[in-house]
Amino acid sequence: MSLTDGSTRIEKQIADRALEYVLHPPTGSDPVVDFAAPGDLLAVFDEAVSIDMADVVQPAPDSALMEAVELVLKHSMHTSHPRFLNQNFAGPDPVSVVGDWLGAALNTTGATFEAAPVFTLIENALLKKLGRVAGYRVDDEPSAIPPGLFCPGGSTATLYALQLARHRHQPDVVRVGAGPDRLVLFVSDAGHYAAVKSAALLGLGMDAVMKVASDPSGAMNTEALSAAVEHAQARGLTPFAVIATAGTTVTSAFDDINEVADICEAHGLWLHVDGCYGGSALFSPSQRHRLAGVERSDSFVWNLHKMMGMTQQCSALLVRDPHQLAPCFATGADYLFQPDKAHGEYDSGDRTFQCARRVDSLKLWLAWNHHGDAGFADRIDHAVAMADHARDVIRRSGGEFVQVVDGSFSNVVFAWVPEDLRPLASLDALDDSARDRMHLLPPAIKRHMQAEGTAMLGFQPIGGCNTFRLICMSSTVQTDDIDAVYRLISTYGGNVTSL
Amino acid sequence: MSLTDGSTRIEKQIADRALEYVLHPPTGSDPVVDFAAPGDLLAVFDEAVSIDMADVVQPAPDSALMEAVELVLKHSMHTSHPRFLNQNFAGPDPVSVVGDWLGAALNTTGATFEAAPVFTLIENALLKKLGRVAGYRVDDEPSAIPPGLFCPGGSTATLYALQLARHRHQPDVVRVGAGPDRLVLFVSDAGHYAAVKSAALLGLGMDAVMKVASDPSGAMNTEALSAAVEHAQARGLTPFAVIATAGTTVTSAFDDINEVADICEAHGLWLHVDGCYGGSALFSPSQRHRLAGVERSDSFVWNLHKMMGMTQQCSALLVRDPHQLAPCFATGADYLFQPDKAHGEYDSGDRTFQCARRVDSLKLWLAWNHHGDAGFADRIDHAVAMADHARDVIRRSGGEFVQVVDGSFSNVVFAWVPEDLRPLASLDALDDSARDRMHLLPPAIKRHMQAEGTAMLGFQPIGGCNTFRLICMSSTVQTDDIDAVYRLISTYGGNVTSL
Repeated sequence: MSLTDGSTRIEKQIADRALEYVLHPPTGSDPVVDFAAPGDLLAVFDEAVSIDMADVVQPAPDSALMEAVELVLKHSMHTSHPRFLNQNFAGPDPVSVVGDWLGAALNTTGATFEAAPVFTLIENALLKKLGRVAGYRVDDEPSAIPPGLFCPGGSTATLYALQLARHRHQPDVVRVGAGPDRLVLFVSDAGHYAAVKSAALLGLGMDAVMKVASDPSGAMNTEALSAAVEHAQARGLTPFAVIATAGTTVTSAFDDINEVADICEAHGLWLHVDGCYGGSALFSPSQRHRLAGVERSDSFVWNLHKMMGMTQQCSALLVRDPHQLAPCFATGADYLFQPDKAHGEYDSGDRTFQCARRVDSLKLWLAWNHHGDAGFADRIDHAVAMADHARDVIRRSGGEFVQVVDGSFSNVVFAWVPEDLRPLASLDALDDSARDRMHLLPPAIKRHMQAEGTAMLGFQPIGGCNTFRLICMSSTVQTDDIDAVYRLISTYGGNVTSL
Repeated sequence: MSLTDGSTRIEKQIADRALEYVLHPPTGSDPVVDFAAPGDLLAVFDEAVSIDMADVVQPAPDSALMEAVELVLKHSMHTSHPRFLNQNFAGPDPVSVVGDWLGAALNTTGATFEAAPVFTLIENALLKKLGRVAGYRVDDEPSAIPPGLFCPGGSTATLYALQLARHRHQPDVVRVGAGPDRLVLFVSDAGHYAAVKSAALLGLGMDAVMKVASDPSGAMNTEALSAAVEHAQARGLTPFAVIATAGTTVTSAFDDINEVADICEAHGLWLHVDGCYGGSALFSPSQRHRLAGVERSDSFVWNLHKMMGMTQQCSALLVRDPHQLAPCFATGADYLFQPDKAHGEYDSGDRTFQCARRVDSLKLWLAWNHHGDAGFADRIDHAVAMADHARDVIRRSGGEFVQVVDGSFSNVVFAWVPEDLRPLASLDALDDSARDRMHLLPPAIKRHMQAEGTAMLGFQPIGGCNTFRLICMSSTVQTDDIDAVYRLISTYGGNVTSL
């Protein structure tokens, strides 16, 4: 790469710089983020290419554009950094990144075999394999309809799944619209907000989502589910679906899918498993038991862009009966899905809502064939091992850290306890003033961490009191990184409380 | 790149090959596609890495993976080839491709400022600029809510727009669900099927979409719209929205937005402009008149991945009143949109349906700053100039080709006429048997073209008779390419009819 050599095309300069970043991502004491307030960021870019778009945009010289690219890299969040423990994705798999690149280079739409011959077959093969991994009975004939589709994210997949559920309940919803029944669905109060967002968009309304109590770990209380379904029926409402969560956002808890499936079968309800986060546990022989019963679900969403490190977006919606897709989504546009076209029976476009659709499958196919099943299992086992290590650090901290929520998967929810409050049995034991202090600590500590760019981890209120959430996603996280993050929290905590 | 040098990481090998493709895309007499039937494609890959995923996937050697990458490139559709005139996207802008790569390398989600500080500001700036280009009154304060959001495709944007429209009509739809009114919306019969797909998903039902007659060019008959609205009201239905199409899929026709806006104002209807395809005409001083009145719309969807050559996906939904977004989509998840987080007021996640969201803005920002407004205008003018050239070829063909639909924008809908049917005044003039012959010709000619990989263009029935649709999207298409495609059709047509 050369910034001064005018003969190097700008495309190559940008690509080379991006590749350099992928091959040698920030690590160790490199900043996780060079965080700046919005106004400061705008000012920094003004020296290269202004972020704001002028009323008349003039072409920027290549050198200015490359300076802007450097600023983009410098000030963006380094999700590949092993101390980015902030979200339920991190550490993009480099093979996935360049697989994504290859797909973008070939820029096409996944809607038809004609426009995407290779990608259609790859997508079908992946959906069938994912379906088999989930335990669905899959027709492996190459020409058989695959048991699902790729979606632009887990929320969209949830939306489609709930429409499929509604469609089974009321087959003419597609043509004539929602009927008079007051449909309701159930999800635990630790489940993802995609359920309520979907209910709003589907016209059911957020009130149609009945939040079922979860136990302290975040798993659904299935007795409460039974009671909620019966209570709803008694009120004249019409239950139609249950969402079981496999890997909740905050505590990575798993609902007992078999128990939920029993209740769904007893009441004739559609069972959707939200495995956006935790579905990938299926790759690990030692972790897949957490999803026992998923093969009984009617639909199952599984984000490969979370635990597996595929780039945004790689979200598979699996369905037990692939023949339900077309009746729910097809329109048969005659300019696109012409019956007299070669191999039109392979077209996927009429089995989903989207028309043009980014190819999300190629990167997964390349990464999976590169790592093999064993490599995919390793990634999951490593994530859990790192979380186990974090739990060890907490246990051995002499009361400086306390685990706030029990858990044995990839999320660790904990608090840092100021010296004068140790030993702290539980957050509930605190009086109001100590609780208020504890509530303010995580945001204050995080602000320091973010300002210095030393690490990133999340926080959220549990029972009204902010607590940290450390998520081990990246295959590059090592015990050293975990140790370093706890040391940082300890230091920042001490500084914050001594102010 | 080296296939044999074991020291070169597979990520670099794939990236280098992808970059090679971007810098030197197929052109001229290179194949547009090396088309193979599904079974043949599967067999070809079996020699490298099988497309089908085994029950136990073993890691593939790097050399096999690179052979597979070559096969992916060889057998995929070359949408960057200047003779790919098949769809309303083509010729990805190389700067956009590598901008997409840079975003993928930094793999993050656009939902929060924390996780995407630079991209949040870039997205806001682009939405404000796009809003200004569309003529919306935009608050240019950096901290002001931007007038829209990026969506994973035009259909999704249409879905959101119709939900916004419904929400304005019935503000409690989000909480309590759809009310008893039988809501209906209007779109021309040449409009995109996203309208009916959205209506199904929203629970309105496809029947809630009233198809308004279009004139022979594909533009909405606005007198018919007026009559349809009044007729629906008389039947006790509740009109709530009209979709005006700016660039129809088949003929690239533009509805008269001002006339539609007058009708919407008279009846209090939400005006959504579907500019997925034709919105980019706004970039050209000589073409933007086609969207006169778009500034009167309530919402406007504009796919930059169509005419502008951004990679899939780059779809902007613009709204006249940005303050309508959050009430329609927010849930306020407390693990993500913490009020005590730094600069949380910049978070976009609660203004849209998606949670994690691929960054679709960076590539547009880089490409726009590289080309400038003038470069963007040139791309549009070139597309129309190439279509004009195609119309010239037809006019000068001595009756071998006839333009089936009048049009002056980027699509050319035409027929190839066998010698014994010339001169052909119109398709309507044909008797049934000649019409049947004409109907079979485009698929037959296309099969030859596809099999030889010489060019790609679409066909669809017009009035029940298949006709060709040539779409000029790519900035690399030259008059030579257009001429070559017509010569090919002539040759294939002659061969087909002589069989």
